[in-house]
Amino acid sequence: MSTPEAVAGGWPEAELSADKFLGGRLVLRQPRKGYRAGADPVLLAAAVLARPGESLLDLGCGAGTAALCAGARVPGLRLAGLERQPAYAELARRNARENGLEMTVTCGDLTVMPEALRQQQFHHVIANPPYFRRDASVRARADDREGALGEETPLALWVDAAARRCRPGGTVTFIHRAERLPDLMTAFAARLGSLELKPLVPRAGRESQLVLLRGRKGGRAAFRLHAGLLLHEGEAHSELGSDYTDEASRIMRAAAPLEFAV
Amino acid sequence: MSTPEAVAGGWPEAELSADKFLGGRLVLRQPRKGYRAGADPVLLAAAVLARPGESLLDLGCGAGTAALCAGARVPGLRLAGLERQPAYAELARRNARENGLEMTVTCGDLTVMPEALRQQQFHHVIANPPYFRRDASVRARADDREGALGEETPLALWVDAAARRCRPGGTVTFIHRAERLPDLMTAFAARLGSLELKPLVPRAGRESQLVLLRGRKGGRAAFRLHAGLLLHEGEAHSELGSDYTDEASRIMRAAAPLEFAV
Repeated sequence: MSTPEAVAGGWPEAELSADKFLGGRLVLRQPRKGYRAGADPVLLAAAVLARPGESLLDLGCGAGTAALCAGARVPGLRLAGLERQPAYAELARRNARENGLEMTVTCGDLTVMPEALRQQQFHHVIANPPYFRRDASVRARADDREGALGEETPLALWVDAAARRCRPGGTVTFIHRAERLPDLMTAFAARLGSLELKPLVPRAGRESQLVLLRGRKGGRAAFRLHAGLLLHEGEAHSELGSDYTDEASRIMRAAAPLEFAV
Repeated sequence: MSTPEAVAGGWPEAELSADKFLGGRLVLRQPRKGYRAGADPVLLAAAVLARPGESLLDLGCGAGTAALCAGARVPGLRLAGLERQPAYAELARRNARENGLEMTVTCGDLTVMPEALRQQQFHHVIANPPYFRRDASVRARADDREGALGEETPLALWVDAAARRCRPGGTVTFIHRAERLPDLMTAFAARLGSLELKPLVPRAGRESQLVLLRGRKGGRAAFRLHAGLLLHEGEAHSELGSDYTDEASRIMRAAAPLEFAV
């Protein structure tokens, strides 16, 4: 599903940008065209209840943004990623190396879990599954963009793979479009317990475009619907740089954790 | 499941209170002991997208609070209720009569839908299902309180009955404990479309205790997660009367509609 250069092992250097994340704690290379990380993987990484010495698997890790943001926040977190597209897997390895973090990236498909990962379970599994449903969206133009954004693998299979790779008592955390919440919650409820939903609210009073959903393997606590995290101040997108709320800014720029209950 | 007096046709007059709803637009009799309507049925009634001349069925209508609140807000709405406990069914009829509203109340169990209702479909079906799971809560003491609050009928059967009694293109709206949202959403997604979730937020930043969920029979629109409706001002319950927010106060006291998207 990748461009020929990408499959061959990467993009020409000129086609990569170097972008700052977490206030410059990380500098990550991404293709200028194709899937580029926005706020989503940063918010996902901030929501993981990870402690030093624990392990984290990022399913569909792309260029490694979410896992590396978690690793930058939590020292000593052991990082692993699974990525289907070889060029992105290679880019994730390079991004880890260039940022002084260790991350084991396996190239493979979550529906045919590679043996190396099948042998392991992790304290935390995270995912930012592709966004657009084939049947409900225009196909993305670039093939690698399609690979990252199109929904080729049903959401329930993502949740199933995440639950299988999670240790008993560990957590599974997804960030996804709010409009997929019924499917996402149904899949989580079938495989995990102690579900907690954190809506991300773009501006005061607006409906959510994104949600964070967390479950615990073997958890038995009642479901919790937390107050939404307000991302932006004001009524419309600011022309003059960012308009993050203080809380969002601490998460995005100062590597603060994203607490569900505040 | 009712007290002997209740089964026999009602409570002694001294055991009933007369309570104002919607700023006094309705005065409803309720047993002083047993299930007493709080804000939930008023919020549920305010959330129904009902227009004059349409029909509404309240599943498990109790003393009629939700249906009568909807009828007081929308003139010419045709009201029907199903209630398992004969004493509450009779009380709902009396409350309708005393408030000058017409409401057809059928006594029966939604899992064995009475023939009179089986023949009909409604523009809108609403429900405020019993709250506490038998397996997760202390049993309520009074038998009729248990009938109203205990969860004897699985939530999926409530949703199934509501969907069957709803006309194509009509709406089903439930208010329920936030902690039951995974089951509620799974059941809604299996029977209805165009789901919309409206969290009710007790105070700024707190997690939701209640949610409103609406679906449309045959609807195909994407799921929407709306901004929460903030119910109370301030940090803690006020000693000096109510601390409803302006928006909640308009809904509770001035019979304003509860709009999901604001």
